[in-house]
Amino acid sequence: MISFECDYIMGAHPKILENLIKSNMEYEKGYGNDHYTKSAAEKIREVCGAPEADVRFLVGGTQTNRIVIDSMLHNYEGVISATTGHINVHESGAVEASGHKVLAVPGYDGKVRPSDVKKLISDFYDNGSYEHMIFPGMLYISHPTEYGTLYTLSELEELSGICKEYSIPLFLDGARLGYGLMSYNTDVTISDIARLCDVFYIGGTKVGALCGEAVVFTHNNTPRHFLTTIKQNGALLAKGRLLGVQFDTLFTDGLYFEISKNAIEKAEALKSVFREKGYKFFIDSPTNQQFIILSDSKIEELRDKVGFEIWERCDDSHQAVRFATSWATTDEDIEYLKSVI
Amino acid sequence: MISFECDYIMGAHPKILENLIKSNMEYEKGYGNDHYTKSAAEKIREVCGAPEADVRFLVGGTQTNRIVIDSMLHNYEGVISATTGHINVHESGAVEASGHKVLAVPGYDGKVRPSDVKKLISDFYDNGSYEHMIFPGMLYISHPTEYGTLYTLSELEELSGICKEYSIPLFLDGARLGYGLMSYNTDVTISDIARLCDVFYIGGTKVGALCGEAVVFTHNNTPRHFLTTIKQNGALLAKGRLLGVQFDTLFTDGLYFEISKNAIEKAEALKSVFREKGYKFFIDSPTNQQFIILSDSKIEELRDKVGFEIWERCDDSHQAVRFATSWATTDEDIEYLKSVI
Amino acid sequence: MISFECDYIMGAHPKILENLIKSNMEYEKGYGNDHYTKSAAEKIREVCGAPEADVRFLVGGTQTNRIVIDSMLHNYEGVISATTGHINVHESGAVEASGHKVLAVPGYDGKVRPSDVKKLISDFYDNGSYEHMIFPGMLYISHPTEYGTLYTLSELEELSGICKEYSIPLFLDGARLGYGLMSYNTDVTISDIARLCDVFYIGGTKVGALCGEAVVFTHNNTPRHFLTTIKQNGALLAKGRLLGVQFDTLFTDGLYFEISKNAIEKAEALKSVFREKGYKFFIDSPTNQQFIILSDSKIEELRDKVGFEIWERCDDSHQAVRFATSWATTDEDIEYLKSVI
Amino acid sequence: MISFECDYIMGAHPKILENLIKSNMEYEKGYGNDHYTKSAAEKIREVCGAPEADVRFLVGGTQTNRIVIDSMLHNYEGVISATTGHINVHESGAVEASGHKVLAVPGYDGKVRPSDVKKLISDFYDNGSYEHMIFPGMLYISHPTEYGTLYTLSELEELSGICKEYSIPLFLDGARLGYGLMSYNTDVTISDIARLCDVFYIGGTKVGALCGEAVVFTHNNTPRHFLTTIKQNGALLAKGRLLGVQFDTLFTDGLYFEISKNAIEKAEALKSVFREKGYKFFIDSPTNQQFIILSDSKIEELRDKVGFEIWERCDDSHQAVRFATSWATTDEDIEYLKSVI
Repeated sequence: MISFECDYIMGAHPKILENLIKSNMEYEKGYGNDHYTKSAAEKIREVCGAPEADVRFLVGGTQTNRIVIDSMLHNYEGVISATTGHINVHESGAVEASGHKVLAVPGYDGKVRPSDVKKLISDFYDNGSYEHMIFPGMLYISHPTEYGTLYTLSELEELSGICKEYSIPLFLDGARLGYGLMSYNTDVTISDIARLCDVFYIGGTKVGALCGEAVVFTHNNTPRHFLTTIKQNGALLAKGRLLGVQFDTLFTDGLYFEISKNAIEKAEALKSVFREKGYKFFIDSPTNQQFIILSDSKIEELRDKVGFEIWERCDDSHQAVRFATSWATTDEDIEYLKSVI
Repeated sequence: MISFECDYIMGAHPKILENLIKSNMEYEKGYGNDHYTKSAAEKIREVCGAPEADVRFLVGGTQTNRIVIDSMLHNYEGVISATTGHINVHESGAVEASGHKVLAVPGYDGKVRPSDVKKLISDFYDNGSYEHMIFPGMLYISHPTEYGTLYTLSELEELSGICKEYSIPLFLDGARLGYGLMSYNTDVTISDIARLCDVFYIGGTKVGALCGEAVVFTHNNTPRHFLTTIKQNGALLAKGRLLGVQFDTLFTDGLYFEISKNAIEKAEALKSVFREKGYKFFIDSPTNQQFIILSDSKIEELRDKVGFEIWERCDDSHQAVRFATSWATTDEDIEYLKSVI
Repeated sequence: MISFECDYIMGAHPKILENLIKSNMEYEKGYGNDHYTKSAAEKIREVCGAPEADVRFLVGGTQTNRIVIDSMLHNYEGVISATTGHINVHESGAVEASGHKVLAVPGYDGKVRPSDVKKLISDFYDNGSYEHMIFPGMLYISHPTEYGTLYTLSELEELSGICKEYSIPLFLDGARLGYGLMSYNTDVTISDIARLCDVFYIGGTKVGALCGEAVVFTHNNTPRHFLTTIKQNGALLAKGRLLGVQFDTLFTDGLYFEISKNAIEKAEALKSVFREKGYKFFIDSPTNQQFIILSDSKIEELRDKVGFEIWERCDDSHQAVRFATSWATTDEDIEYLKSVI
Repeated sequence: MISFECDYIMGAHPKILENLIKSNMEYEKGYGNDHYTKSAAEKIREVCGAPEADVRFLVGGTQTNRIVIDSMLHNYEGVISATTGHINVHESGAVEASGHKVLAVPGYDGKVRPSDVKKLISDFYDNGSYEHMIFPGMLYISHPTEYGTLYTLSELEELSGICKEYSIPLFLDGARLGYGLMSYNTDVTISDIARLCDVFYIGGTKVGALCGEAVVFTHNNTPRHFLTTIKQNGALLAKGRLLGVQFDTLFTDGLYFEISKNAIEKAEALKSVFREKGYKFFIDSPTNQQFIILSDSKIEELRDKVGFEIWERCDDSHQAVRFATSWATTDEDIEYLKSVI
């Protein structure tokens, strides 16, 4: 059976495995002091056009969100997020477990509106009791969002401006960043992100790696003794080469972008297939996650033919479901899909 | 240059990489719901002779220690450990960061003495102010210890008995468990450990895997909703297969024991080499970590010829250094060592 | 100048000070083991009709909320609250600082709706990804609410039923409980609360004491080693008698109810004064906090004549302000108010 | 029965109660914005000869230790303390509960030795693995110590020098500071402490107040938004006047020093009584806590005649016990003691 259930149902891009094998018997220092990690960081700095950036490698997305947020906030600060933000819904309260409130603003197809963010912050400082409240200490956005949508460059600039105005960092969760960058409908480049954000990460787990996220502190703003913080959180790999080799591979000869592009091409093909057959879309997503509205009976019918994920109920007889493409999706997969829906 | 610096300077056992490749293009559920994870858990239950055990997979040792300890303790409880215990020294305060005190008892070549453990607990309950103190809520031991030493079966039984008497769990850190089990000087089997401990883990990172530790809750005592706790701590891999495939490989046809045995054989050979050349040992270790006393000038001389780790200063002109063997150490490595020291 | 700014702008009811003096030179055990604390607990059990209840004394409201919530929740659980709940807005993120998410449901004049609570919980368990989310682990309500409003007995029963259905505790924040119990518009008694809640507290700070809240665990459900938890949170008074004497006084001869009744009588008189002069009310509050809509110019005019608190802006030229009565408010205060507004 | 069990078995100094009554019906702002709090802070700055100091009032000692330590440390830092330090033994793990390790150095009658402190810090920075360890981030000392002993001025200067050398704050726990300052055997003044420490507190609870500790940040080094941190920890009194009035009273006309002096005079008289009767001392304490060695039979005999606290067992038939004097101890109490021992 072909599956579009998510973008982490298969292993890694073959070149990653190849390089893991090639480097396997080399001696390398532990804890991220290996050559591959250094090389990967350098290549990421280059691709971001940010020579002064500091790049660190962590294992997964929730881990990255928790550690970055906790280490950049004071105890009296919380993080602003869309209500639908991954940190606010699907990370088992990781941010709160590390002591910080998530200050939710409405999510519009996953995105926050600059005006809402600005209002939350200015209302806070206007409040006579603000010392009894949680300070807005950071803005968290995901790009692509949990709904596959993207910020425009002008939106990112506006959000960045608000953060600068109030001296709080802008943190961009790029668990699926590649798919956002290679979308047909975006005017945002990775160097825009490096220029506008204080910290962001380049997702590996969902873009062809076995695991791993590359965190980019864009301007000499890595929290002090960040390695100790990573260790304290149980996130420091003894064999840091596992992350180093993977990201070094992904950022050699543009592999990261190439495989992201494949996912976008296949997503567009998938959209056409559904559109042509008259299906309605739950959200207009320009990235690799596509949300289609299916009737309950159709869902039942397709269940054994193709893999997808139930997203949410729309009405008594319809549900939104998610089809995700990835680096591994092929034309044959799309053809197969066409034949069964 | 040949290096004995530690047991995590190379990649993974080739069979692991082989199986990662073999399974790479299969669809597998995320978050540990894949077939490999299930199979690995089953094989570990079998090898432990513990059909009722629950086996979970985490990424690294500090992460495992932090999560297991925090999820098994109440807020008013601390964990007893040797002063030299990994959790007390080299985990960047991870246990305290999750809210718990490490209650240190003296370490004797890395081991705790049952009498010290018993005294700490009974003194606590005898103390009129014990409600103002931290309750001893768990005993943490490492086996092999950080100094390569091992508990005897009778010591383990005594420690287990004390824990049962006071109704606190016994937790064994087996980051290098394989090397302990295959030592020439041990009467402890993995089923002894499964029988005597409430929870322990089988280290992968330092015994041939790229990463990963298999946590065994021996008797239906997994903390409730442990998956959510893992997620909250940022320790849940989306591609859980990475851990599943590795442990499934390690526990197929006794690979874990076979490669551990290789490390022990090479460690014994290494000991002979040093002994024959008249070197003194810092500690008498029956496992893969060997601690030799070298003069400062010898250290200087060897620095460019062979890799090892400085452990601690002994006197003005001597230091203890560590040579570690592993699954990957060869007879040629030992021959080389012999030729340079 | 007369002030209605809040219910904690004056000291303590004179009888409390009298008894502090009377008992001052008696030897008493520390940490709540004094006779007054025991006597106060017994009197509270009696007035609640809850002989099996356990009563503990803490210093302030935020402290009580933080400690009760943290000690009754598991790490993977959060607490349901109205968006406007004190714990969600005005406690500087104390609940999150102790590791737990506040799961907000809409507040209607400060109250949660049973249907919203039920939906939040059932949606959670219906969600396929609930293990990646925070479990609803407790329901927090305030009575009176932060807006002075009250639950009816039938609403409390419904909320209690939902909590029982899902086996989560119902926690009632009674920082101003006396004013709720003595309202002219309530059918809820303190024994109803003791019967329907798993834990609640009887506010002292805002009802005539210098400080102090009496926490009632209604049915042998005090968290284990709660004294150690109190100490760990820095909330254990060495001179526990300070709380014991105050609550013993408040619960002798019905003083707590008598002084609460005074506040209600004066609040009703205050309402009449405003109503007769044609002022509009922001909320219809049956307790000691009254919320009036004043024009900006009226606020300016009154500023030097009478104390009150700015609550929130209603429109371009009007704001809601709060006038609070208390145990100390006199008929003369009301007459004065009448003369200046 | 007369009791010397501790210095918090009676209420408050009568002048404190007098002033609580005198100020009771005055309107005062909440949360420490009252006139008494401001006046008390000003008087403390004066008595410390530290016009630039910031003075804050908290409720109890453990609370103060926890909040000060947590708010002045980074997540990767721990606090150095004597093994016998209050924070290391008798605060139910409050420091660890807020995420920080206590780095214990040997206690000598409760005091740390500068050489041990220096060694711990320099060993840390010499350690090749220090990034995997907890940074020494603060030095905590108590003065008087838990054993009634005192640092000399030269010891304090040396400790302060070490802290400056390594840029870590020196924090002095003065829960019983008055008794230290008024000791016959000290060359340390309160302005020495204000000059040498980065933060310290002046204990009220054990020196005549009902509750309260005055925290002095000596040089514009109050943690940012400290009020919010206090609130978050549940330590902010709505009726902050309770602390303001008490400390304003204690620091008017030298009352704090006068009542501390009384305790010292009575302690010296008590020492003479025991010495004359041939009793042995467990420790040579120059402050209000006296530790005497009593035989088990003598303890039994005295149990119903006079109050004291069991400290620790010395041998099979003897125990050390504590007799504490206070502001309230009278000549008659000492005479009575003489007559019964």
